[in-house]
Amino acid sequence: MSPERLNVTFAALADPTRRAILARLSSGETSVTELARPFEMSLPAISKHLKVLERAGLIARGREAQWRPCRLKAGPLKQAVDWLEHYRRFWEQSFDRLDDVLRESQRKERKHGRKN
Amino acid sequence: MSPERLNVTFAALADPTRRAILARLSSGETSVTELARPFEMSLPAISKHLKVLERAGLIARGREAQWRPCRLKAGPLKQAVDWLEHYRRFWEQSFDRLDDVLRESQRKERKHGRKN
Repeated sequence: MSPERLNVTFAALADPTRRAILARLSSGETSVTELARPFEMSLPAISKHLKVLERAGLIARGREAQWRPCRLKAGPLKQAVDWLEHYRRFWEQSFDRLDDVLRESQRKERKHGRKN
Repeated sequence: MSPERLNVTFAALADPTRRAILARLSSGETSVTELARPFEMSLPAISKHLKVLERAGLIARGREAQWRPCRLKAGPLKQAVDWLEHYRRFWEQSFDRLDDVLRESQRKERKHGRKN
């Protein structure tokens, strides 16, 4: 997986409108007009976001002249997860540590006979 | 998980130097000077990247006056994976489809008795 590819994927995901567009497309392909409806944004503004997503390979657009439906392409999301998974042991370790702290604090409470 | 949090996490990950810094920190905490060594970059340039990572909650820096070691904090990475996991069925579907295509093409090759 090329670093450039990850750069554009993560940059595309760093915007809440673009993430909302992907979420909408996860229920099925749709037109730009439909995609724009829930946002208080002009069609050109939405189109700009779609271009970023398209360049990142996260969406594809139909070639029909009138209605160019957008659909989700999840390949780059898998690559992002693959990269992030290298760090899984770190977040699991921190949750284990938090778990130890909570268990120790409960043990102490029981020892001192305190309820709250 | 707040959208702003995901914005800053994904934006921080959209840079290859910052991802390389996180990779380096996954082998243990280290100083800024050590972190800067493999990059052809000035210390101020590296410090700028570290600030982005720190704001995103992806690293923490020690408070010792002389040596302020950086260490990895993986919590935001877990949140990013949690968001991405909603799309798992899409990339798994595409790999299933690819699998079908490959299997069908192998079946045809066998039928026609072709090798290569």
